[in-house]
Amino acid sequence: MAEKGVFDRLIRFIDNEGAHRYGDVPVDLSIAEIEGKAVSVLSGNVKDGFKKTSETKPVSKLLCPLQYAPIIPCIGLNYRHHAEEAKMTIPTHPVLFVKPSDALIGPFDDIHIHPEVQQQLDYEGELTVVIGRDGKNIAAENALDYVLGYTVGNDLSARDYQVPASVSGGQYSYAKSFDDFAPIGPCITSTSLIPEPQVLKFTTKVNGEVRQQSETADMIWSVRQIIAHLSRGTTLRAGTCIMTGTPSGVGLWMQPPKFLKNGDVIEVEFEHIGIIKNKVVFD
Amino acid sequence: MAEKGVFDRLIRFIDNEGAHRYGDVPVDLSIAEIEGKAVSVLSGNVKDGFKKTSETKPVSKLLCPLQYAPIIPCIGLNYRHHAEEAKMTIPTHPVLFVKPSDALIGPFDDIHIHPEVQQQLDYEGELTVVIGRDGKNIAAENALDYVLGYTVGNDLSARDYQVPASVSGGQYSYAKSFDDFAPIGPCITSTSLIPEPQVLKFTTKVNGEVRQQSETADMIWSVRQIIAHLSRGTTLRAGTCIMTGTPSGVGLWMQPPKFLKNGDVIEVEFEHIGIIKNKVVFD
Repeated sequence: MAEKGVFDRLIRFIDNEGAHRYGDVPVDLSIAEIEGKAVSVLSGNVKDGFKKTSETKPVSKLLCPLQYAPIIPCIGLNYRHHAEEAKMTIPTHPVLFVKPSDALIGPFDDIHIHPEVQQQLDYEGELTVVIGRDGKNIAAENALDYVLGYTVGNDLSARDYQVPASVSGGQYSYAKSFDDFAPIGPCITSTSLIPEPQVLKFTTKVNGEVRQQSETADMIWSVRQIIAHLSRGTTLRAGTCIMTGTPSGVGLWMQPPKFLKNGDVIEVEFEHIGIIKNKVVFD
Repeated sequence: MAEKGVFDRLIRFIDNEGAHRYGDVPVDLSIAEIEGKAVSVLSGNVKDGFKKTSETKPVSKLLCPLQYAPIIPCIGLNYRHHAEEAKMTIPTHPVLFVKPSDALIGPFDDIHIHPEVQQQLDYEGELTVVIGRDGKNIAAENALDYVLGYTVGNDLSARDYQVPASVSGGQYSYAKSFDDFAPIGPCITSTSLIPEPQVLKFTTKVNGEVRQQSETADMIWSVRQIIAHLSRGTTLRAGTCIMTGTPSGVGLWMQPPKFLKNGDVIEVEFEHIGIIKNKVVFD
């Protein structure tokens, strides 16, 4: 079992000597204002587990909480209101697509966009689950034992490579797979602080304007069910980072569609986790 | 550039002392009969590159030529005849879905099938490209410089999780992602021996009966175009294993459909690479 109590909110950071470290931020410190402050250092890593140390180090720069993910499975169409907005029938199993590890960037990093995927760029704020230990054929009722914690994610999407079916044969993965298309952070909040993931409120803003406002209670498939589905006959590895789907309010379904432009700033905020805030930079 | 001339046909194997090693098999030795014979040992790995050594070691067991793949992108609908068979319109970009690294098994390993995915199990024989060095925004004309070599792949598919769209929302990745769903091997043939990947003949058999017989000249998107497409704005990592699509003759489109049963043996053979031969074992 992913050991409980080792951390409250796990961060990865560069310290004042340039070393990359993991740290633990107590709930009374703001992660948005953590740079320059000292935090308790954690030893270990996602694969082997973390341990408390007696050391503290100042945070020079906050990094993506995961250095690497074995894979980033993403669930589509997982909020009832979004499904209605997209006028899509809810299928009998979760809709799965995949991002590679290089899509990951940190909570305040710029999102660099390749010139050929700038036309229909869109955001999707999502609860993101980090797996803490390897598992296979995990029952839904035990699924949360495999969770290291929860982080905030933005499932960036180049819609012109996603829809209509005549573009990429109806498959979503390509449109979602570009470098920088998975900002996550600012921390991984432990399952001690979030014992129940289906009660979290969250908001997505673009340039300060609220675009998505929902709660994980609206999910069609719960975190428990998603983990059970993804581990059916398949080994889920520690460090796997699962994006669990987005609610209504994405740019594609606005009338008229409102895609991201160079310089736009997207904020996704989840209660008990924090904010990620990333600027779009067209290369 | 992936260094040429270091190997002809790269294998991974267990030697007589139980050590895992890479080796080079010259073209005049049969890989199907390599167990018990001595081969030249290669030092290094896919990420850092390989070097010849003066050592030879006997092969006790042939392994999957890749221990791990950062990701396994798979192209759907890439043979003109298969597209016609599936009555699908050819989209303007390649159809991409993804398998995780744990799908990999060796060239003669059994394919263990989870009880819930045994109903509509299908094979797809495919030319499989192994990337030899990291790259991004690779031009089609330079794409083969990034190739370590070519191997044979079988893109196993649980069709009942793939079609129709009402099952998994039309997304293919879940149906293709189970452990053991990517047998590859028996070797990685160098780009010196296969300077041109679009001229290879291949055959898929089930229990000795020919089901697929095609050549890579029938591909809609060439290996060069696929690498350019996959690396657009996306870092392609060394060790990435690209399955390039399957021709006509899969079980799903037979009349009536003919899915794999417990004990069935699937062989995929490519000229200049060899044969993979895997038995289906229903767990």
